[in-house]
Amino acid sequence: MTDAPASDLRPELSAALAAARRAADAARPAALAHFRAEGLAADNKDESGGFDPVTAADRGVEAAIRAVLEADRPEDGVLGEEQAARPSTSGLTWVVDPIDGTRAFLIGAPTWGVLIGLNDGTRPVMGLMDQPHVGERFWGDGATAWWAKDGQAPRRMTARRGVGLAEARLCSTFPEVGSPEERAAFERVRDRVRLTRYGLDCTGYALLAAGGVDLVVEAGLYAYDVQALIPIVEGAGGVITTWDGGDPQDGGRVLAAGSPELHAEAMALLAG
Amino acid sequence: MTDAPASDLRPELSAALAAARRAADAARPAALAHFRAEGLAADNKDESGGFDPVTAADRGVEAAIRAVLEADRPEDGVLGEEQAARPSTSGLTWVVDPIDGTRAFLIGAPTWGVLIGLNDGTRPVMGLMDQPHVGERFWGDGATAWWAKDGQAPRRMTARRGVGLAEARLCSTFPEVGSPEERAAFERVRDRVRLTRYGLDCTGYALLAAGGVDLVVEAGLYAYDVQALIPIVEGAGGVITTWDGGDPQDGGRVLAAGSPELHAEAMALLAG
Repeated sequence: MTDAPASDLRPELSAALAAARRAADAARPAALAHFRAEGLAADNKDESGGFDPVTAADRGVEAAIRAVLEADRPEDGVLGEEQAARPSTSGLTWVVDPIDGTRAFLIGAPTWGVLIGLNDGTRPVMGLMDQPHVGERFWGDGATAWWAKDGQAPRRMTARRGVGLAEARLCSTFPEVGSPEERAAFERVRDRVRLTRYGLDCTGYALLAAGGVDLVVEAGLYAYDVQALIPIVEGAGGVITTWDGGDPQDGGRVLAAGSPELHAEAMALLAG
Repeated sequence: MTDAPASDLRPELSAALAAARRAADAARPAALAHFRAEGLAADNKDESGGFDPVTAADRGVEAAIRAVLEADRPEDGVLGEEQAARPSTSGLTWVVDPIDGTRAFLIGAPTWGVLIGLNDGTRPVMGLMDQPHVGERFWGDGATAWWAKDGQAPRRMTARRGVGLAEARLCSTFPEVGSPEERAAFERVRDRVRLTRYGLDCTGYALLAAGGVDLVVEAGLYAYDVQALIPIVEGAGGVITTWDGGDPQDGGRVLAAGSPELHAEAMALLAG
């Protein structure tokens, strides 16, 4: 035990957590300046013709986060969605998704978030997800995970256990993403659970950590979509892997569950 | 023009709006006491075996709202989701959905809301939608519509115009509700629009009023699911009817659009 507040994660991460919090604080006005604003321009980054809105907010938020991290943590690398990667000389690299849930952001829904993860060269060791419009923040380090609404004391999060598939609550970005095979695999899980909610993006993982959601099944993720969320899910006692049980840090097909038992049940269904 | 603040709706509604605001204020602690709380019990009201969670929050919020309205507006009737209807001697009836979006509430997502509408015996004349967790409120009277985050000045809402189907953003509760025929009709619209988001419940209508969403297509609604939202959508310049263009106040199949032109396009697709 240490003298640090209980919500401050492992002591060796305290300086990094402080930097992540400052970066998330800087991201808020950069994001909110564009949220529900008139004339929000949506570029189309996806050359295949699909819909991937990118907004001025996405770029402004990444710039705000990078400015903080480059000042506070000059030896760390930064891997973001929008700008070129900055190499690390410390062995640590920040992995940033400035606006996760750009479709939610575009329509004005409150479920988007700012993702700031820290990778030690082998795995994500700390993650923070901030929701500027709602005014709440989730963070974790694989050992513990926390949630706080603005002005309220942090609460420790624990994933829900003892829930079988028939009672489980599932979140996913399907039916929007994924190949036909991936969608069929997702539907095998969906058809067995109690309740499915779509399109919550990072909020789904945070709510899994908080015990409200039991499963997240997604495909087509990038590293920056998932790295900040891994230490939050694992810190709450959840399990997060690829669909075949591998390391999820590079994204792709990702399965998160509140318990090892439920994870195994879902993984078997995804395998066909 | 009057001396009332611009966000206070038509002057003849000022006392009713004040009562609705007090009722929504009273609903907040009643709802938040149960949001993301441990051991939230979900009854199953739907005898057909489907999933319709009802929580202690639902009942507590309706009781809190009724207590305010019965004290402030003793001659008005109250039609709520949870308790027996109270008859009106004034000709006015409040139509209350204590927690719209109970599935979102259950999993801890921020998209649920409290709906408080006022019906003059022929139609809903005023509506308010409050989001206790996010801390924002939407209201309207068919002539104007407004949105305010806690501590910020109200902003007038205007639905987005000049958007054809191919650029439209659609919200719906499908694929969770509706008959196979209703789902097929919904999918005819979905297959033509730019972007579809699921499961936003009342938030979808509020975002249509705010200009972020262009279409809402739903089925299986109750009167209390929609009455408070009608004056908000219409107050922002939107159009809301049943799928065949009729009066939407009794619920059922509901179509909302940001403009008459888009409404006509969607209605034609729904008709098959």
